[in-house]
Amino acid sequence: MNAVLNINITPIVKSKLSDLSLENIPFGKYFTDHMLVADYSNGVWKNVEIKPYAPLMLEPSLAALHYGQSIFEGIKAYKLHNGEVAIFRPDENFKRFNLSATRMQMPTVPEEIFIEGMRKLIQIDREWIPSLPDHSMYIRPFMFATDAVLGVKPSDSYKFIILLSPTGPYFSTPMRIYVEEKYTRAVTGGVGFSKNAGNYGSSMYPTSLAKEIGYDQVLWTDAFEHKYLQEVGMMNVFFIIGNQAITPSLEEGTILSGITRMSALVILAEMGLEVVEKKISIDELVAAHKAGTLREVFGAGTAATISLIKELKYQDEIMYFDTASWTIAPELKQRLNDIRQGKVADKYGWMFKVD
Amino acid sequence: MNAVLNINITPIVKSKLSDLSLENIPFGKYFTDHMLVADYSNGVWKNVEIKPYAPLMLEPSLAALHYGQSIFEGIKAYKLHNGEVAIFRPDENFKRFNLSATRMQMPTVPEEIFIEGMRKLIQIDREWIPSLPDHSMYIRPFMFATDAVLGVKPSDSYKFIILLSPTGPYFSTPMRIYVEEKYTRAVTGGVGFSKNAGNYGSSMYPTSLAKEIGYDQVLWTDAFEHKYLQEVGMMNVFFIIGNQAITPSLEEGTILSGITRMSALVILAEMGLEVVEKKISIDELVAAHKAGTLREVFGAGTAATISLIKELKYQDEIMYFDTASWTIAPELKQRLNDIRQGKVADKYGWMFKVD
Repeated sequence: MNAVLNINITPIVKSKLSDLSLENIPFGKYFTDHMLVADYSNGVWKNVEIKPYAPLMLEPSLAALHYGQSIFEGIKAYKLHNGEVAIFRPDENFKRFNLSATRMQMPTVPEEIFIEGMRKLIQIDREWIPSLPDHSMYIRPFMFATDAVLGVKPSDSYKFIILLSPTGPYFSTPMRIYVEEKYTRAVTGGVGFSKNAGNYGSSMYPTSLAKEIGYDQVLWTDAFEHKYLQEVGMMNVFFIIGNQAITPSLEEGTILSGITRMSALVILAEMGLEVVEKKISIDELVAAHKAGTLREVFGAGTAATISLIKELKYQDEIMYFDTASWTIAPELKQRLNDIRQGKVADKYGWMFKVD
Repeated sequence: MNAVLNINITPIVKSKLSDLSLENIPFGKYFTDHMLVADYSNGVWKNVEIKPYAPLMLEPSLAALHYGQSIFEGIKAYKLHNGEVAIFRPDENFKRFNLSATRMQMPTVPEEIFIEGMRKLIQIDREWIPSLPDHSMYIRPFMFATDAVLGVKPSDSYKFIILLSPTGPYFSTPMRIYVEEKYTRAVTGGVGFSKNAGNYGSSMYPTSLAKEIGYDQVLWTDAFEHKYLQEVGMMNVFFIIGNQAITPSLEEGTILSGITRMSALVILAEMGLEVVEKKISIDELVAAHKAGTLREVFGAGTAATISLIKELKYQDEIMYFDTASWTIAPELKQRLNDIRQGKVADKYGWMFKVD
């Protein structure tokens, strides 16, 4: 990487913003005026450019479409109460992005492009960030292989892009969850810890089967015994048992290391819970439920932040929860939101100011 | 699907063929004048068109790039000795394509588009099929998700495309293979049996590690014990032990059901071998090698047909083979080639005539 990075800026002629209301804007459907695009070839990143959002001309033999070298991240930026704009922990997404890149045999992206490019892009499209409560700017960095030949091999060329999509509140009613025992999302030695496109496509069929019988998402279990819990849908999962906040541990490489997950672990400890990252089985969960100590179950992810789970179906066992009486997940969500909207001091240094 | 399928044809103005020599043309690098494109939306396939090969205008939020709903097939067509053109077992690729589609929660493609569209496309670009020995026309049908929103869900719209790429002989020198014990390609309940893009991207990092220490490909093993053999690189694998031709069985859903594999099973039986599809462990292989009964080891796939393996490294055990003395793999390859080039009677009905 060059020591000095030039980001060429080609501004739009006329903003599309005036055509759009940002109030309750749906997730991931509208994009701002600009996007950042960078190209990788001959071992070097180049052509870093912020330019008008537009379709791409891509070869039908595009390597990413055939051989799946394609990774992404999801990040949120907020307009704070004092009018400043800040991004929630983009450094963690940056690290995870490059872990995904390595596992998928793709080049890493330098910080000057990922973080500084994101900062500049947000500055340019800052008027697009909704200032309404629970609204935010969803940031989607992604990278894909662009070689145009059909031989199976790591691509020599790649495109890195950052899109911005303003988003309203993510209303999620408490979910009904099906504990998956037939299909597998990830196994040790595979790519479950990386945020690559294939992990999502692979999960859609099992999820659709669960939806057919009335469930919202599946709770993934280990590939060997279908007993140890992994993730719920596209989110990390937490269980409050007694005074413990338990979440599946990362060391098997089957779980995405969520930024909301790692933040929740800090906040839950601050709230007085004993936080535990460990291998946890469905049997332990069922036993805790029977003993009356399983208090709350929820998902944690960037899009919905914290999603309550009101029902867990495991074989013939159905565990129902009265989510209206819960206190921990709602407080966790509130505390996270307060930090992200600048209502409380950012004592962990999680908010990355763009100005 | 409409009972009558219209394929609109927009011919090129001037063929690119005169600019190109088809002799020893490299694999997957050049494409013919035309491609077939069809669109799926609102539950219906439409806009089926054969038109000039050209880049596509795609949204940067293209679902396939973010969530990996992307599948493909590889098929070959041949110019026969009598001048006719035939495709090798496209009906089997058609069936497998739709199995992949279902697992990836994508729509199936009707036979009128997949098979009849392919036939018509080959007819139109038939001058591009090399008639030199060991040359062929590589056919690449593929389908990908085209929704342009970032919410994770099965796409509502898809594109199906067939590309044609003339290809010369695939010179593969006998390979050195590393038996993989850390990384995993596939596990029961996952997507190993489907030909989706993500399976290929996921395999590149482990393969590159093997290449760094001098091996050409990895031999994938099961996710639990790293003991039972799955595939070699992107190919199915065969072991000749005594009078048995053994290949890993399909029932665990971790292996691609190769068309070359299923054809090899027929030919090997015809050659007098006892063909066996079963779970086979590396220990069994090592024992057979020690006993002097492991005669040949080879990969079987569309691109290279049959690829000899001259070395297998498993832990500290290295098995060397004198491939020059082998008779079974070379004969299998010859018999397959003779059928595909129309030199012998097509007694199994494997060659699908395009005219």
